[in-house]
Amino acid sequence: MSAHFAHSFRVRYGECDPQGIVFNANYVAYFDHGLTELWREAFGSYAVMEERGLDMVVGELNVRFRAPARFDDVVTLGLSIARLGTTSMSTRLWLHRDEDLLIEGRMRHVVVDAESFAKAEIPGWLREGLAPYLDEDLDV
Amino acid sequence: MSAHFAHSFRVRYGECDPQGIVFNANYVAYFDHGLTELWREAFGSYAVMEERGLDMVVGELNVRFRAPARFDDVVTLGLSIARLGTTSMSTRLWLHRDEDLLIEGRMRHVVVDAESFAKAEIPGWLREGLAPYLDEDLDV
Amino acid sequence: MSAHFAHSFRVRYGECDPQGIVFNANYVAYFDHGLTELWREAFGSYAVMEERGLDMVVGELNVRFRAPARFDDVVTLGLSIARLGTTSMSTRLWLHRDEDLLIEGRMRHVVVDAESFAKAEIPGWLREGLAPYLDEDLDV
Amino acid sequence: MSAHFAHSFRVRYGECDPQGIVFNANYVAYFDHGLTELWREAFGSYAVMEERGLDMVVGELNVRFRAPARFDDVVTLGLSIARLGTTSMSTRLWLHRDEDLLIEGRMRHVVVDAESFAKAEIPGWLREGLAPYLDEDLDV
Repeated sequence: MSAHFAHSFRVRYGECDPQGIVFNANYVAYFDHGLTELWREAFGSYAVMEERGLDMVVGELNVRFRAPARFDDVVTLGLSIARLGTTSMSTRLWLHRDEDLLIEGRMRHVVVDAESFAKAEIPGWLREGLAPYLDEDLDV
Repeated sequence: MSAHFAHSFRVRYGECDPQGIVFNANYVAYFDHGLTELWREAFGSYAVMEERGLDMVVGELNVRFRAPARFDDVVTLGLSIARLGTTSMSTRLWLHRDEDLLIEGRMRHVVVDAESFAKAEIPGWLREGLAPYLDEDLDV
Repeated sequence: MSAHFAHSFRVRYGECDPQGIVFNANYVAYFDHGLTELWREAFGSYAVMEERGLDMVVGELNVRFRAPARFDDVVTLGLSIARLGTTSMSTRLWLHRDEDLLIEGRMRHVVVDAESFAKAEIPGWLREGLAPYLDEDLDV
Repeated sequence: MSAHFAHSFRVRYGECDPQGIVFNANYVAYFDHGLTELWREAFGSYAVMEERGLDMVVGELNVRFRAPARFDDVVTLGLSIARLGTTSMSTRLWLHRDEDLLIEGRMRHVVVDAESFAKAEIPGWLREGLAPYLDEDLDV
């Protein structure tokens, strides 16, 4: 793991299922939550995207479940950008509880026009703001 | 109970919490789901609201939890309209599993302009379409 | 408002609906989240309940929606206990964004045996730990 | 696509986000919902697993987002089993709205002991019940 961004939070009760662990879909919601927090650190808030006429949609998602998170666990979502393409961003994500790696993820987001949802080129300001989180040694 | 509309569905796994029962907030999502289905029966779909420039927001909500629903239960959401005011609609809701009453609810929705979200008068077409579901013997 | 406990957090994107505001059921999930945090402050964690053979279920819930919360809002959930009965606890809840009151809630929780889910008397340790949050001037 | 099992349902309002489309994590909840319905067709219900001391956890998940589903869409989740290993099951999933392919997924579930959550061998009755859904021409 080599996360260039990290955000910690607690697992909520309603996010857990009858197995007593986080329901599998909710890890994906955690990934989305992590992206929002990365945008806050890099740009002040996610709202800058919409203010500048852009938005993002998820193109592809991969999740490997190594161990479950449980109610009230403090977990840390680590995130690095593996690649910034012309219109897409590939990220690697890791969810840890202390030293334990629970979940590994890969996402590909596509930058789109906020109105038409058509693919849009990643503009300079976005590329520059994300540069500190880019780790080109990571495979996509 | 005297529901003038009913819709049955199954409890999904991800809607249940570590107690093995439906997480309390999800009953409220079921109420919302029931309203959508009432609109389908009465008007074809909820989309007619937006097409005609209207939407609804929840003003008040009351839920009494009598018994829990569990994963894979087939439950029936009954619904009657207790009052159609100038701009608001008061409903009574009941969630049953077979003969067992699990949850009782009361909601007050407010009709709003779909753009400004300002209160809007309930128009004639809406009042007429909802008339079959009105039971004025119910208290609000 | 006279909250004896308060917990602040941010609205997540996936908690919002196509109206651009928090989906109504998710405010109820926020209430549940607030209770967990109250337990943390009062007892270290919610887990003390289960360790001592107890749990809680929601008996009744009332929500008044005054104004919506939106994506990325920092909101504060205030909470006071209005009454500690023999087996039940009545709370008042308020969700604010800065000075604006968005949501008001009332909940009645019932203390139950963690195995049988039968009503259980509120034990002394629980009553004492919750005493600082009790405001008997509040109506239930 | 060559789904050996299919289940249709409607997108609910609370499953959609401010972009007006299904929130990305909720497609994963749909996959889980589809598995439950496959179990119903094959075995009567998912409960047979637990009755026989088994459960399943997700080991890996892949989702490709081709087009979004929207509120009130009727969507069909197709599912085929690509491989039944000693302790794991690999599935392919497709979400369609009419002829349009919206989402493609791959999941690997691991069969576990319902108590210890340790990996368990897939027993004969499970293997036989799932045989009709197996399509060995699919890549994992």
